[in-house]
Amino acid sequence: MTGSGPVRGVLAAALTPMTADLTPDLPAMIAHFQWLLGRGCDGLGILGTTGEANSFSVAERLSIIDAVGESGLPKDRLVVGTGTCAEPDTLELTRAALAAGVKSVLMLPPFYYKGIADRGLAESFARIIDRVADGDLRVILYHFPRMTGVPITAGAIEILRRDYPDIVVGLKDSSGDLGNTASLLEAFPGFGVYTGTERYLLPALRAGGPGCISATANVTSPMASDVFRAHERSDGDADARQEQLTAVRRVLDGFPLVAALKEAMTTITGRAGWRAIRPPLTPLEPARERELRDSLAAEGFDLDAVDPESSPRSALAKP
Amino acid sequence: MTGSGPVRGVLAAALTPMTADLTPDLPAMIAHFQWLLGRGCDGLGILGTTGEANSFSVAERLSIIDAVGESGLPKDRLVVGTGTCAEPDTLELTRAALAAGVKSVLMLPPFYYKGIADRGLAESFARIIDRVADGDLRVILYHFPRMTGVPITAGAIEILRRDYPDIVVGLKDSSGDLGNTASLLEAFPGFGVYTGTERYLLPALRAGGPGCISATANVTSPMASDVFRAHERSDGDADARQEQLTAVRRVLDGFPLVAALKEAMTTITGRAGWRAIRPPLTPLEPARERELRDSLAAEGFDLDAVDPESSPRSALAKP
Repeated sequence: MTGSGPVRGVLAAALTPMTADLTPDLPAMIAHFQWLLGRGCDGLGILGTTGEANSFSVAERLSIIDAVGESGLPKDRLVVGTGTCAEPDTLELTRAALAAGVKSVLMLPPFYYKGIADRGLAESFARIIDRVADGDLRVILYHFPRMTGVPITAGAIEILRRDYPDIVVGLKDSSGDLGNTASLLEAFPGFGVYTGTERYLLPALRAGGPGCISATANVTSPMASDVFRAHERSDGDADARQEQLTAVRRVLDGFPLVAALKEAMTTITGRAGWRAIRPPLTPLEPARERELRDSLAAEGFDLDAVDPESSPRSALAKP
Repeated sequence: MTGSGPVRGVLAAALTPMTADLTPDLPAMIAHFQWLLGRGCDGLGILGTTGEANSFSVAERLSIIDAVGESGLPKDRLVVGTGTCAEPDTLELTRAALAAGVKSVLMLPPFYYKGIADRGLAESFARIIDRVADGDLRVILYHFPRMTGVPITAGAIEILRRDYPDIVVGLKDSSGDLGNTASLLEAFPGFGVYTGTERYLLPALRAGGPGCISATANVTSPMASDVFRAHERSDGDADARQEQLTAVRRVLDGFPLVAALKEAMTTITGRAGWRAIRPPLTPLEPARERELRDSLAAEGFDLDAVDPESSPRSALAKP
C-alpha cells in the first residue's frame, strides 16, 4: 500500500451505538470511535456489517458520515462502508464520504441478486468509480459471501485492478477462509487484502496483507495491536500473542457477534443503552450474557477490568 | 381471502422498463402494466425481484409508486414491493403505496443479516405495521430464500398471524418448493400462500392457494390465466393446460430470468430499449437470444406471434 492508501494494522469494524428509539446515537458513536483509536486501533471501519449499516436508511447513514466529517477524528485512519444494493445509494454515500474527508471506502457488491456474472459485478463497481470521478478515492472491496451470497470473484478483481489499479486498492476478506486471503494476496501483487477476523491476523500479515478489519476488535483491539506490533518488530512472541487473541476470538465466534459486542460494551461502560440493536438483530438473551462474560474471563479476558475511559494512545494522532 | 384481501389468480411480477441511462422509464412501465392486465393477468406485483426493485434507490421506487398512483391502473389489482434491508426505507415505501391507493404490499424481510431469530424477523415486520397504523394495509410476506438467505419461517408467520391476523394475509413462496407452499397452506388456514412459479399454479390452487405471483407471467400470462380459469370452472383440461404452461416455464428457467424476460419483450415489441437492465444484472448474451426464441417456439410459444398491442381483456376493469 502506498502512503495514500488505506491504513495498515488493526482496524475495528466499529459498532454503532443507538438511542432508545433505535436511531444512531451520534455523540456516543463518536466517543466510541475515539475510544477505539485510543485503544490500539490503527484505524476504523465505519458503517460496516458490525456497524449495522444495512439496517440504516441512506439518510441515517449520511447523518453518520456527516458526524464523522465534523468530528476531530483523523480521516486518514477511517474507512467508510458505502456499498448498497442500489447504485444511486452507493454513489451518494461514496460522494458523501469523500466530502467528509474520508477517501477510503469499503464497498459491498449489490447483494440482492445472486448468480452474478463477473462482468456485471465489475461493472457495478466501475459505474460508481466513473461517476465519483475522484482520483483520491480508494475502494476496498467487501467480500462477505455468507452475508451477501455475492462473492467478489477473482475474475471481477482482475477487471477492476486492470481498469482502476490506483483506486481499487484492497479487499476485506470476511470469508473466514485464510486460504482465500492468501491466494488473493498471491494472485494480485500490491493488492491490500485485509482479513476479516483477527483470528488470522498474523498469518495474513505474513502472507503480505495490510492487517485486519474486524468486528471483535471493538473489544480485542489492544491484543490485536500487540500481535500487529510484534509482527512489525519481527518479535519472537508474535505467535504466542496471536494464540491468546485467537482464544478470545473463538469465544466470541460462539455468539451472534453484533449483539455480543454490544453486550460486552454494556459491561465495559456500565451503560445499558449499549444493548440497543435494530431488528432483525436481537439483543443477547439474558441467559447468555453471563456465559459471554465467564467464557471470556476463562481466556484471561476480563470485561469488567477494561477501562471505559482508557486512552493508552492518543485518539487524534497516529501512534 | 376476503374481498378486501389481495387479488386471486395470476399476478405477473412485472418487469420495469428502463431508459438508455438505466433509470425507470415510467411511461413505458405504465404501458407494460396495462398490457399485462389486458393479457390475462388478474393482478400485478410491482417492484418485486423481477422489477429490479432492489437495484433502485428509495427515491426511484417512490417515483414508480407515484406514477402508479397517478395512472388509471386499478389499484385493487396491484401489489407493491416495499421490503428493504432498512426499516425506515420499508416504512416510507409502505406509506407511499397506501398513499398511492395500493393497499397490498409484498414485503421482503430485512435481508442483509443472516441467521435471524424468529422473534427478530417478526419484530421487523411488526415495527412497520405498527408505525403505518392503517387497518387497510395488507401484507404479503416475501419468502425467497435463494435471494435473501433469510427464510420467512413458520415461527415468524405464527407470531405475525397471531398479532396481525387481518393485516398479514399472505405470502409469496418463491422457494421453488411446492411442498413448502402446501405445508404453509395447511398450517395456516385462511393464509393466502401464492406460488412464486406458475409451474406449480394448478397444484397450489388445488392446495387452496390464491394463485401465483410470477416473473415469467410477464410473457406467459394468457396460458397461466387459462390454467386458473380452467381450475375455477373445475374444467377437465386444467391439467393439460398446466402441462403446456410448465413446459414453457421450464424453458425460461434455463435462462437468467430478468434478462430473458426483457429479451422476450424486446422480441415481442421490436423495441431494443427493452434490453436495458441495471448492473449487477446483465443483458442476455447475443448467442443466447436465438436459443431463447427457438426453445420457446419448440414448445409452441412463438414470441414473434405475440401481439404487442393485444388487449383480450380490458386493462381497466376486472374480468
